[in-house]
Amino acid sequence: MKKLINNPDHVVTEMLRGIEKAHPELTYHEGFEVISRKDKKTNKVGLVSGGGSGHEPAHAGYVGYGMLDAAVSGNVFASPSPDRIVKGIETANSGAGVLLIIKNYSGDIMNFEMSKDIAEMQGIEVDYVVVKDDVAVEDSTYSAGRRGIAGTVFVHKIAGAKAEMGGSLSEVKAAAEKTIQNVRSMGMAMAPCILPGVGKPGFTLGEDEVEIGMGIHGEPGVFHTNVKSAKAFAEILVEKILADYDYSDSEVAVMINGLGSTPLMELYIMYNEVESLLKEKNIKVYRSFVGNYMTALEMSGCSVSLLKLDDELKTLLDYEANTPGLKVRSL
Amino acid sequence: MKKLINNPDHVVTEMLRGIEKAHPELTYHEGFEVISRKDKKTNKVGLVSGGGSGHEPAHAGYVGYGMLDAAVSGNVFASPSPDRIVKGIETANSGAGVLLIIKNYSGDIMNFEMSKDIAEMQGIEVDYVVVKDDVAVEDSTYSAGRRGIAGTVFVHKIAGAKAEMGGSLSEVKAAAEKTIQNVRSMGMAMAPCILPGVGKPGFTLGEDEVEIGMGIHGEPGVFHTNVKSAKAFAEILVEKILADYDYSDSEVAVMINGLGSTPLMELYIMYNEVESLLKEKNIKVYRSFVGNYMTALEMSGCSVSLLKLDDELKTLLDYEANTPGLKVRSL
Repeated sequence: MKKLINNPDHVVTEMLRGIEKAHPELTYHEGFEVISRKDKKTNKVGLVSGGGSGHEPAHAGYVGYGMLDAAVSGNVFASPSPDRIVKGIETANSGAGVLLIIKNYSGDIMNFEMSKDIAEMQGIEVDYVVVKDDVAVEDSTYSAGRRGIAGTVFVHKIAGAKAEMGGSLSEVKAAAEKTIQNVRSMGMAMAPCILPGVGKPGFTLGEDEVEIGMGIHGEPGVFHTNVKSAKAFAEILVEKILADYDYSDSEVAVMINGLGSTPLMELYIMYNEVESLLKEKNIKVYRSFVGNYMTALEMSGCSVSLLKLDDELKTLLDYEANTPGLKVRSL
Repeated sequence: MKKLINNPDHVVTEMLRGIEKAHPELTYHEGFEVISRKDKKTNKVGLVSGGGSGHEPAHAGYVGYGMLDAAVSGNVFASPSPDRIVKGIETANSGAGVLLIIKNYSGDIMNFEMSKDIAEMQGIEVDYVVVKDDVAVEDSTYSAGRRGIAGTVFVHKIAGAKAEMGGSLSEVKAAAEKTIQNVRSMGMAMAPCILPGVGKPGFTLGEDEVEIGMGIHGEPGVFHTNVKSAKAFAEILVEKILADYDYSDSEVAVMINGLGSTPLMELYIMYNEVESLLKEKNIKVYRSFVGNYMTALEMSGCSVSLLKLDDELKTLLDYEANTPGLKVRSL
């Protein structure tokens, strides 16, 4: 597998240097692998997220106005250590407390919780939420309970808007929790990715084989199937989501998330199918996001996320965001 | 090769339906494969671009405030026919004339020129510019003269801003021509793409083989080499660009464009190297763009584009743009 890298051991550092150079509004705290905002306000709730690298633009790409204050990177597909997360919390803190947005993987939970305790001993008020949007499996290789995947980006967006609008720590947490309550995702993989320096994929799929419900680190999903039409795959993913949560007669935000190497053409074809399926069920799309939002290096495939909206969530979703990975222009 | 599609013959139509649904501010003119803006002004110079599909977000993704008024899609990697382009011109026309932004491929030149003649017979004032930013080869499989590649996105951005600010047709054309004069690009491919319905790649590269200067349709480039470091590839691409045009002591916009399946992580690593090389040569980056801007389905690789800036181009580059594929927030 050909990679456009220098040294596999330095991919995270060199990527973060590139992000800092490309986005002068962001600062890279080298050694801690933290990306933070330069336009730090005072007395705004700080938002920190992070996790393994390899999911770009998540998470560093969501640092900026209306979303995160700091993102903490681990090595590829590996949780960041507590010293890094504590640095992220310190950087994001401006006196009104810090909310951690954690994807539900055991390593992340352990390290973020430990970091919360350390930061609290330093006098910083810290709370957290855990995203578990993936309906594919109830427990997984790296998680007790459901995994957190692309729906996490909605949590960044909604909580980020609430914090930017001056919400208190408990109000920002409540907005994040409502988002977590209302979002479900389901993915599929058509071809694996390869970790830098490893040289071979973590799993294999046959020429006519697709895995439904695969995780964003190549963790096993629900079942293998053969290659089907976009329409058939859209039905499989949407039906599993709708069976899990009641979206009937509601308005939703939809995300069709590419895992890395699926052409945008195909993601729009999937969206065309997903929107039609939702319409048939009287579910109205309020806003949609089609693109690479939470990838798995160059994995091929996609995930579908549905977020049920109420008036508060609509307002927060529509609020201005200006980050490298997601820009929303308020109307 | 697994594709997330229904019928290979319908990929363009289904993609454009998806784009229309996902972006309610855009209209899809089915049958003509034209995407246009709903917020049509009167007496604004209309901007039309287009070309083969498979380069998403180019070109339909650049329709919107501050960029194109209409994009015309051909089949995958095939020029759109004149009836489609004429429809694009009619849709973009609001009384102040229409500028066509054409990438230099023989089929595109022929069809866009013919469309210009037809539209002029209908009383619409039409002019055009041809983008030839690729310094790799002087003539190519599908072009007499240099090919137009990712630098075209800068032409959309700059000309789009000039038109939005009320420039006349000749002023918008002059801004586009200045951009074309000042932009150079150079790409490389690490793995091929496969056209929907074809089932095998249009070219092959060995396990340790990379093609320097390959086109965005898999046309041959300059030479094959083995896999090198990101730094070494950055040097090869940047040196070829700098040998072609005098960027010394200037400020530039940089685009690191992914061809489809190269992870964003690797594009930022490339940007880190490119920025360092430019700095060594006293070339200052004013603004950068790192991501998938003009792809070749799921081809692996990237291109580097450099646009030399003056005060006028900086103002136009910084002007607000709000399209699915590129959003710039005016400062």
